[in-house]
Amino acid sequence: MSLPVFALVEDLRAELAAWRRQERRLAVVPTMGALHAGHQALVRRARELGDEVVVTIFVNPTQFGPSEDFAKYPRNLEADRRLAEEAGATLLFAPEAREIYPAGDQTRVSVGALAEGLCGASRPGHFTGVATVVSKFFALFAPATFVFGQKDYQQLKVLERVAQDLLFPVTIEGHPVVREADGLAQSSRNVYLSARERTAALGISKALASTQAAFLAGERAPETLLEAALRVLGSHELAVEYVELRDADTLGPAVASKNEPSKKWILLVAARSGSTRLIDNTILGHDPALRGP
Amino acid sequence: MSLPVFALVEDLRAELAAWRRQERRLAVVPTMGALHAGHQALVRRARELGDEVVVTIFVNPTQFGPSEDFAKYPRNLEADRRLAEEAGATLLFAPEAREIYPAGDQTRVSVGALAEGLCGASRPGHFTGVATVVSKFFALFAPATFVFGQKDYQQLKVLERVAQDLLFPVTIEGHPVVREADGLAQSSRNVYLSARERTAALGISKALASTQAAFLAGERAPETLLEAALRVLGSHELAVEYVELRDADTLGPAVASKNEPSKKWILLVAARSGSTRLIDNTILGHDPALRGP
Repeated sequence: MSLPVFALVEDLRAELAAWRRQERRLAVVPTMGALHAGHQALVRRARELGDEVVVTIFVNPTQFGPSEDFAKYPRNLEADRRLAEEAGATLLFAPEAREIYPAGDQTRVSVGALAEGLCGASRPGHFTGVATVVSKFFALFAPATFVFGQKDYQQLKVLERVAQDLLFPVTIEGHPVVREADGLAQSSRNVYLSARERTAALGISKALASTQAAFLAGERAPETLLEAALRVLGSHELAVEYVELRDADTLGPAVASKNEPSKKWILLVAARSGSTRLIDNTILGHDPALRGP
Repeated sequence: MSLPVFALVEDLRAELAAWRRQERRLAVVPTMGALHAGHQALVRRARELGDEVVVTIFVNPTQFGPSEDFAKYPRNLEADRRLAEEAGATLLFAPEAREIYPAGDQTRVSVGALAEGLCGASRPGHFTGVATVVSKFFALFAPATFVFGQKDYQQLKVLERVAQDLLFPVTIEGHPVVREADGLAQSSRNVYLSARERTAALGISKALASTQAAFLAGERAPETLLEAALRVLGSHELAVEYVELRDADTLGPAVASKNEPSKKWILLVAARSGSTRLIDNTILGHDPALRGP
């Protein structure tokens, strides 16, 4: 294996400085490890955007709630290294927590309305943890292009806001949800699913596809579009946390104007299959991967 | 006048990029304008640290409370331009609020324990406003050296923490308090003082000098050192908000060990003369400007 792995901020800074002197464009894919085909698609996209591609692997403690799966979150650096290299990464940054949260750390970055509701409602403090750790990466790597997956759509919107509001010289690229052949969105947490739970989990992407199909058939009433998803979710063994139709830019409510949306709408779902919390979404009329059942 | 004034982030970024290509070292002095001899000392220090020196002039709305002096804070761009150029600035950045807080802005940077107590107690949200706006400047100007005055000592500590915690590639330099001939700390708010209020305000630096003299005479008991300051403050027409002896590094309590401080101690005062709130401080045994009366 030739892909270098850096663990120290100081070492990383030296390498970044050398790249900058050579005017190498940088693309960064921040991850919590447990890489899968979804992450690899982000890395391949990053390869198109940068001369150097850094994959960060950091299971960020501040974005997990006390009852969440921080301790058991899947970790496997050697497998991650192989998958990252295969997809075109040129450096892996895998720091310990003390590198990212120096002794005495007490600074937090928080976002307002965008971080409320949806996942923010059930995971208090989650987006402050995400905005804080990614701000550190923005500060460390800038100038750079960051590639994030759209599966975590609210997260993507929060991070776009952080980059813009804090004037970071970074560009943010959202990458469409990557799915398994049967439609299940790629997620590091899929490994938790039993065969039965996995079958139930398919109800999520099927629900999104059902609403997508209704939209493509011309349906524009928010309630009717939601009902299409709810019907499918209800026929699967899932504990639904939320199903919401929102404005895809602002995450504000989807408001029908003359029965035609003036802006892009997104359907977002969070549900548990067994004890595994899964999220997924689709932008109506803009998701070639989910054209309906 | 030849000192260029930039108002737009976009224009500034282009200039900064050009400087970086020429490997010009950058030093930045963030101010709220109303420049005085204290700011000029910061700019002269910045001149020693950078090939280019940017003075930012931005009266930051988010660091003022609703009953504070945001609207009446002194503003005079032409005078500032003259004073900044005289001291060696090479660019003035004087943006409108919408440049620094883009439409929809909702990101805030907050600091924990360091921002509590002292000025944080009477100015809720103040340090979040300061940490937020300076984070934007860190993101915009990095890599750079930032020069801040030690008169706002708690602010300096908060900003050192932000820079370290968020991994900004910036260096922070604290500059000793600059005083008028009679000891009054230079402040943009001094212009508010009537002659009588100004005489009363001198009680603050005299109080610091009294404690400094006691310390230099060998006194090490925190209560006795505090009493020296309180005695002087009490004999002046001032509304004292706080007088505190703290550890100069952590801002934690000053604890005497074997009657000898193991670390640097700082005496900090906030008081109103008339309706003008003034702050000042001295590091005991490390302040040549305040050796006692």
